[in-house]
This record gives sequence, C-alpha cells and structure tokens, in this order.
Amino acid sequence: MTQQHSLALSDNQLDILNKALEEGISTQVKQMLNSLSPADAAHLLASAPPRQRSLLWKLIDVEHEGDVLNEMSDDVRQFFIDRMNVAELIDILDGQDIDDIADLLQQLPQTITHQVLSSMSHQDRQRIEAVLSWPEDTAGGLMNTDTSTVRPDITIDVALRYLRRHESLPEPFDGLLVVSRDDTLIGTLPTTRLLTQDGNKTISEVMETDFIAIPVDMQDSQVAQLFEREDLVSAPVIDENHRLLGRVTVDDVVDVIREEADHSVMSRAGLDEDEDTFAPTFKTARRRATWLGINLMTAFISASVIGLFQDTIDKVVALAVLMPIVASMGGIAGSQTLTLIIRAMALGQIGRSNTRWLVTREFIVGLSNGVIWASVVATAAMLWFDDSVIALVIALAMVINLTVAVVVGAILPMILKALNIDPALAGSVVLTTITDVTGFMSFLGLATLFYS
Amino acid sequence: MTQQHSLALSDNQLDILNKALEEGISTQVKQMLNSLSPADAAHLLASAPPRQRSLLWKLIDVEHEGDVLNEMSDDVRQFFIDRMNVAELIDILDGQDIDDIADLLQQLPQTITHQVLSSMSHQDRQRIEAVLSWPEDTAGGLMNTDTSTVRPDITIDVALRYLRRHESLPEPFDGLLVVSRDDTLIGTLPTTRLLTQDGNKTISEVMETDFIAIPVDMQDSQVAQLFEREDLVSAPVIDENHRLLGRVTVDDVVDVIREEADHSVMSRAGLDEDEDTFAPTFKTARRRATWLGINLMTAFISASVIGLFQDTIDKVVALAVLMPIVASMGGIAGSQTLTLIIRAMALGQIGRSNTRWLVTREFIVGLSNGVIWASVVATAAMLWFDDSVIALVIALAMVINLTVAVVVGAILPMILKALNIDPALAGSVVLTTITDVTGFMSFLGLATLFYS
Repeated sequence: MTQQHSLALSDNQLDILNKALEEGISTQVKQMLNSLSPADAAHLLASAPPRQRSLLWKLIDVEHEGDVLNEMSDDVRQFFIDRMNVAELIDILDGQDIDDIADLLQQLPQTITHQVLSSMSHQDRQRIEAVLSWPEDTAGGLMNTDTSTVRPDITIDVALRYLRRHESLPEPFDGLLVVSRDDTLIGTLPTTRLLTQDGNKTISEVMETDFIAIPVDMQDSQVAQLFEREDLVSAPVIDENHRLLGRVTVDDVVDVIREEADHSVMSRAGLDEDEDTFAPTFKTARRRATWLGINLMTAFISASVIGLFQDTIDKVVALAVLMPIVASMGGIAGSQTLTLIIRAMALGQIGRSNTRWLVTREFIVGLSNGVIWASVVATAAMLWFDDSVIALVIALAMVINLTVAVVVGAILPMILKALNIDPALAGSVVLTTITDVTGFMSFLGLATLFYS
Repeated sequence: MTQQHSLALSDNQLDILNKALEEGISTQVKQMLNSLSPADAAHLLASAPPRQRSLLWKLIDVEHEGDVLNEMSDDVRQFFIDRMNVAELIDILDGQDIDDIADLLQQLPQTITHQVLSSMSHQDRQRIEAVLSWPEDTAGGLMNTDTSTVRPDITIDVALRYLRRHESLPEPFDGLLVVSRDDTLIGTLPTTRLLTQDGNKTISEVMETDFIAIPVDMQDSQVAQLFEREDLVSAPVIDENHRLLGRVTVDDVVDVIREEADHSVMSRAGLDEDEDTFAPTFKTARRRATWLGINLMTAFISASVIGLFQDTIDKVVALAVLMPIVASMGGIAGSQTLTLIIRAMALGQIGRSNTRWLVTREFIVGLSNGVIWASVVATAAMLWFDDSVIALVIALAMVINLTVAVVVGAILPMILKALNIDPALAGSVVLTTITDVTGFMSFLGLATLFYS
C-alpha cells in the first residue's frame, strides 16, 4: 500500500538494472524503467555511465521522455539534448508545461530554439516568450503562471462550489489568491481559513491582508531565504503595480536551496554545481584542466617566492623541510575564517555594523592560535634539528602567517563580493596564494635575516 | 499591504538597530524588536556580537522569548540557554509546542532537563518523553504529532463540516490522513480532492491508496531526498505496524537540507554546521585550535618525508623551489574528484555497478591532465633552471601524483563511509596528506635516483 520505490532505487534496483543491461535482457528493463516515476527514471539515468545511459534512454517510452527530461539536472539533460535532432525535441516538448518548456529551451543553441518555437501555436509561443523574459535566477524565472484566484466579493460557499467544478487544482494547493478586477493582488485565503470559516462570510471578510508577496525581480536566493524564514508553501509573485503574475512553490525553492548548497561545495573545487557525475571522460578532463591551470599559476607564484631565498635554503636545508608547515597551517586557519564568513554572508548576517567586531575577533583568534601552535612547532623543530634559531624563526613566521590568514579570510569575501567576484569560486584560490606567499616569505625572509 | 520586512532586515534595519543600540536609544529598539516576526528577531540576534546580543535579548518581551528561541540555530540558542537559570527556562517553555520543547530540552544538561520536566503536567511530560525517544536525525525526531485524520466511512461533506468546527488546522494543511479505528493509516485525501470531488462520495471512494508513508526510523537525509524527488509538502510517519504516529512537513525538511548543505561546506574546514558566526572570541579560538592541531600532525608527516631527502635538496636547491608545485597540483586534482564523489554519494548515485566505470574514468582523467600539465611545468622548469634532469623529474612526479590523487579521491570517500567515518569531515585531510606525501616522495625520490 505504501509506496517506497524512491528509497530502494539507489542501491538494489540500480544494480539489478545494470546487471540486466549487461546481459541484454532489455524487455524486462524496459518494463521496469517505464514503471518508475519520472523522478526515479531521471535519477537512474543520472547514475549510469554514458554508454548504458544512451541504451537506457532508448528503452523509455516516447510519451514519458519529456517528463523524465524535466526531472534531470541541467548537465545530465544536456547530455541527452546534445544527442537529439530538432524533430525529436519538438515531439518531446509537445504537451509539456509552459514553464518546463521554457526551462529546456534555455539550454538549446539559439538557432534550435527558434526552430522549436516556430513549430508551436502562436499562443504557446507568446506564453513561453513571456516566461523567458524573466532572468532564470529571479522570482520571475522561478514562478509558475497557473494560480487559483478568486474575487473578494463572493462568499466562501460560492468559492467552494466554484472550486468543485475543477478537475484538479494547481499543486501544491495551499489556498486562494484574492484579486481585484484588474488582477491586483489584494489578499490571500489560506486553505485552513477556507475550510474553517463560516461559509456565508464573503472572501473579503476572511482574507489575509497582511500577506507576503514577492516582487518578480527578487533574486532566487532571497526568495529561498524568505521561504525558509517564514515556512511558506507557496507565495504570490507580483509586478511593480501589485498585479499578480504567478506564484513560487516550495518544491522549486527546495531546488534553489540544493543548488546553492551544491554551488558552495562544488565551486570550491572548480566544478559546476550541476556537474554530471557520469560525464564522458574527455569532457570531464577538459573541464577540470582549466581549474588545474589556474591553480598552477598560483603554485608558480609560491615557487617564485621560494626561489628568492635559494641561497638561504642552500645554507640551512632544514628550512626546506619545515617551510610547508608554515604555509599549510596558514591555509587551514584562513579557510576556517573564509568558510565561516562566506556562509554568514549567504545568510545575510554581515552588515557594516558588525564587520569591525568580526575582524577584531578573528585577529585575536588568529594571534592566539598562532602563539599556541607556534610554540608546539618551535619545540618540535628544536628537538628535530637541535637549532634554536630555526625554532625561533618558525615560531615568529607561524604567528605572522596565522594572523594574516584569518584577517584575510575575514575581509577577502567582502572585497570579492564588492568586486562582483563569487567568493565561493575565487576565495579559496586567492586565500591560499596569500597564505603561501606570506608563509614562505616570512619564514624564509626571517631565516635570511637571522642566519646572515 | 504586502509584508516584506524579512528582506530589508539584513541590510538596513540591522544597521539602524545597531546604531540605536550604540547610542542607547533602547525604547525605540525595544518597540522595533518586538514588532519583528520571531524568525526576524532570531536572525537579528544571530547577527549581533555577544555584548549587543545580550542587551537585545533583555529588550525582548518575555512572552516572545520562546518563539524567538525556537527560530535560532542550535549554536546561537546555546548562547542564550547558557545564560539562563532553570526558572527562566520553565517560564519560556510554558505554552510552547511539544516538538519545540523537546528540541530545546535536548540542548540542556541532564540535570536541568529533569528539573524542567518535573515542573510540567503528567500528560505533557509523557508526550515530550515520547518525542524524545526517537533519535533527532530520524523521521521520528523530525515529525510533528498533530495531524488531521478522518475515518474512511464518512462522506466528504461530513468531513468538511467536521473541519469547519475547528478554530485552526495544523499548518501546512495539505489534506487529511485516513485512518482505521486502530489508527492504521489506510489512505490520504489531498486538499485538491477534498475540494474538487463530489461531496456525497465517501472518503474511502476518493482517497489516495497509493501514497507515500515514512517509517519512523528513516534517516532524515533520506526523508529529505524523498521530499525533494516527489515534491511533497507533508508526509505521514508510521510505525512498523502501519500505525500513524505523526507527519513530517516540508519546512522541517528544508531545515534538514540546509543543515546537510552547511555540514558539507563547514566540516571541510573543521567547523560545526550550525557554528555561531558571532560566538565569543575564546570559544571560537578553542574550537578552531583542535582542527589546526589535526592538520599540524599531517603537516609534520609531509615534512618528515621531505626530511628523508635533505641530502638531495642540499645538492640541488631548485628541488625545494619546485616541490610545492607537485604537491599542490595533486591536492587540487584529488579534491576535484573527492568533491564530486562525496556529492554523488549524498545523492545516492554510487552503486557497486558503476564504481568501476567511475574509477577508470578518473584514472584516465588524472593521467591525461597529469601529462598535459607535466609538460607545461617541465617546460617552465627547464627555462627557469636550465636543467633537463629537473624538468624530466618534475614531469614524471606530476603524472604520478595527479593519477594517484584522482584515484584516491574517487576511492577514499567509499572507504571512509565503509569505516563509518564522515567523508565530508575527514576526506580532505586524508587526501591532502596522501597527495603531499606522494608528491614529495615521487619528486624528491626520483631526483635522488637521477642525481646520484
């Protein structure tokens, strides 16, 4: 009775399907695949290496293809779109929701978009172009245009009779939106009020007038914060004249939150947030190469700093042994602060008023941890190399580097944001370059002074 | 008419409030603070340094304190709980929801929990203890016990009349749960069916029998995946006999997703997912010290590897200049793979059937990127030091290290998970230790061979 396919899928069904595929039992696979929900089928395709993926796709019934495609992440969807011709695309898009078609069209090259659009009815084309006119990462790009609206002057009973004439209602249904004759949003009627209030009362008597409405140009991350903070299931979207344009629903907001989360994890490794786990080898290699190239440049910067002190290292080779410790501890301390600040910025916790307190605290934290670990490292260096000068030098260098690291970790995300650079993407690279340079420079520089 | 306070808060109001605080205009602040929604007040407190935070807290009306406390992250809430006595706590908890009280009690020391519980009525105590009996990270720990249920043999009209007798319904309301006499869950009646089906039909005729029910011991991350995939607003929670225990709602799931996301970002820097951005200096310094200590040990491991080759470095000091490049490029390449695999594991994409394909692809990606960047680095080294041996050595070392790095990056998360170690926490530390050791060992080892 209870339906729990989604849970079993990842482990067992996945293996069974893959085994069946290898052995070529495609009728069974075909049956099983087409009995899955579109979300599960999309998950299965996303979890398959390229060759199996193409095989599986051929087994999906044509009438399911559109739904399955809708459930995929951009990157996996691109895999399949790249392998289709225009006629196939037009077939698949036929009968899909306007919003979903608009989503998919944004992934196509301009010329193909035009071909697909011109295959549609004038009305559909206009509606799609309206959705496409809002940037993808705003409330307008996120909203659905189907809403359940009602006029303020009718009674609850009339509203209920009106609803009963529908076959279905836009999901998730959490109430009616009250609009005036010119589509101005004037109130909301949550389901609970609709169901618990006296049926003879008019909508205007019972509607909520202190409601949350989202401006169509609000950033999707702000929409997500609003949903999280106010525990919303859906919220109306309005234009600058308070006219109702559509509504954002929590399922789309969940996707935004997941994407944002993925972005902050993935971009730190130079990966896309919707990176296809099973992307073909060549595509993967090429994408990763860019990030390695950027990091190589920063590695050469550190190397050139070391290069300045070759004579000193030549004199005291122990410096070469210990120098990575100074650099790496700075990197760790700095990235702790960096991570904390980037998260706090995403939560909207950082304002002009509390920045000074934060930077001061980080300075003290860096200094005190610098002193603590500097003494540990100095003791270890003393025991290892029996050289009190090197112990002193590494202690000083560590205090300097850890203090610089945490202060830079605190300020850097704010600077990058002001420069319109994504801190999640560039923060870590810039930070470690600074901590490496500071670490090598202070350690080897001090050593040059003390040993000369 | 539209309520948009949540958006303006982070930037303007925050600064105004802090300025007002500094200037001591506390009556105005008090008014403003108490007019905020609990979620906004909690956000404001979380965005304030410790001293201002304590001041602000005193300005919040006692009857709001409980609601504000509920909206805080664990770590920020702990800040305030630590500063309260038992009597204050009992005052605040009076009148709160059972679930919220249970949540808060889990943060208190055992002795205080007992004192608070014994101040409550027998019935409340029993209900709280029932909620506390489920682990926090399962469906049981996540669920609310208030549900709207209905028997299968009544008509829709009777159900609607029955609902109308209520003052309010559990939010978010997305339908009725159909239970038999012994509380066994036999169906669901989504709001849309309740509103669109003929009122004379019985519940059993129109209810959904193919519904999703969550076992009470399901992990919260699995619950979140289920909600995401099936676009749920709420789902019933059942015991092993299919008896209805409560329901999980999407707002709690959103919190789980946000926490998971924060966990994967924060734990990589050795931070807690609910780390208080404005935690007092001493507490921050102590927490971070642990992570620095762990990383210091791994830094010493790398240093000791370099230590083995002091004679070689003494002979060719250019090795000291170039060795960080080999180590750091390995770390970058490895962490790209590590990040991708950890994310794929969280999404349930990795099974026995596709692991071999993935590891093979990563091997090829690592090898080819190794060859590409090795030739770049070798050319640069040749130009810099005019030494073909060092160019050859660094090229070989880079190919070795990048290949090892990506294969380790792919396999390590699976090994850690099998050992019940959190890959998000330990993965990066273990990986960079391996890439550092491999990098230094291969580069300096090969150099020792070639220069001897």
